[in-house]
Amino acid sequence: MASALFYLPDVTSGVLSPEDSRHALTVLRLQKDDEIDITDGKGHLYIARLGSPGKNQASFEVVSRSEKPRRQASVHLAIAPTKNIDRMEWLVEKCVETGIESIHFMKCARSERKEINLERLQKVAVSALKQSRQVWMPALQAMVPFKEILELPVQDKFIAMVDESNPVSLRQSLRKNADTLVLVGPEGDFSEEEAAAALDKGFRKVSLGPNRLRTETAGLVAVVTMNLASSQ
Amino acid sequence: MASALFYLPDVTSGVLSPEDSRHALTVLRLQKDDEIDITDGKGHLYIARLGSPGKNQASFEVVSRSEKPRRQASVHLAIAPTKNIDRMEWLVEKCVETGIESIHFMKCARSERKEINLERLQKVAVSALKQSRQVWMPALQAMVPFKEILELPVQDKFIAMVDESNPVSLRQSLRKNADTLVLVGPEGDFSEEEAAAALDKGFRKVSLGPNRLRTETAGLVAVVTMNLASSQ
Repeated sequence: MASALFYLPDVTSGVLSPEDSRHALTVLRLQKDDEIDITDGKGHLYIARLGSPGKNQASFEVVSRSEKPRRQASVHLAIAPTKNIDRMEWLVEKCVETGIESIHFMKCARSERKEINLERLQKVAVSALKQSRQVWMPALQAMVPFKEILELPVQDKFIAMVDESNPVSLRQSLRKNADTLVLVGPEGDFSEEEAAAALDKGFRKVSLGPNRLRTETAGLVAVVTMNLASSQ
Repeated sequence: MASALFYLPDVTSGVLSPEDSRHALTVLRLQKDDEIDITDGKGHLYIARLGSPGKNQASFEVVSRSEKPRRQASVHLAIAPTKNIDRMEWLVEKCVETGIESIHFMKCARSERKEINLERLQKVAVSALKQSRQVWMPALQAMVPFKEILELPVQDKFIAMVDESNPVSLRQSLRKNADTLVLVGPEGDFSEEEAAAALDKGFRKVSLGPNRLRTETAGLVAVVTMNLASSQ
């Protein structure tokens, strides 16, 4: 059984966050000299030993540090958040678990949701990172207008469209070692102007399969498809 | 905009279920002579015209019928249900949306959950079928002991294992036009005896990727991976 994994962006502090301290001391009932794993979300895994517990404060000393390089090809998703925020929390959890470098939220012409609570989604992401024992924290970006997403500097860029005149699948379009971004639109799909603007900026239209998918399902299918292409 | 899609296993009745009748008349406020789509979940899509509404009863007359063949390769998942049943409901919804022929629930040595409410999951499946506008209803099977799952008559059979000595990925192992079954174990993984019994029955060990996945995430990743292989 692996040790509990904690997320702490700056380990030089030598102290877990108040929330993680409580978790370590009260829930896991860890004691002085017990070992824990810590990641800074920047590719490092630390093994640390707990010091004498303070009041709701778990201090530690780093025992060893190992490093994992970023994977060769990066996976990026830009999505118009659904009205039901639970579905976005679910999507963030699943994207982080299966592997992603960045998630961007965009405001589209037909978006029903105009704002998101990034802090809440960030917590979901941290929890999924720890659960899946990864050491690179994906970037969650605040919501921006659709047009700004078109300027993201990613090699291979796709727009998922429900379009029967478009038989090209995402899977067929992916290159093995390329950084890839897929756009997934709102429940009412992209507007014609948005689609045209994306094509104009070098995005290619792709299909995610024969079925009509909910927004968050489309997002996850795109990410799993990109991961399968990048990992083999 | 497509007409509302209803699911009715036997259209010869000429009447929607009480629940669907209420939905048609009260929520969608459909009127006499309005058209609806109906699927029997056996490959047929009917266009029907509503008759005079009775008290909470929507009768209809079939106007036309079209048929869609089953896809060439079928996708099957057998999974040990998670303790948290919400995660299984979510999995059923997402499997149905992305495409699956049958979902089997199994009781494993380390299963935390010993029973499931199949009726509730069936409702989730129907809702996902309608939402994704499909005409083949996947089969949801009642929970059975692990050993019975090993006897399922499927061509290509895999067991997803968290096993660092096993570098073969599901994706590399899939054949394009084969019926395929993947087993996904409980939170505590399969026991050694279960793994040995599966190998003995012709199952092959596969990995679903580099990250440690939750049970329901592993289930969906397996299904999406099978769908990608079967659809191209």
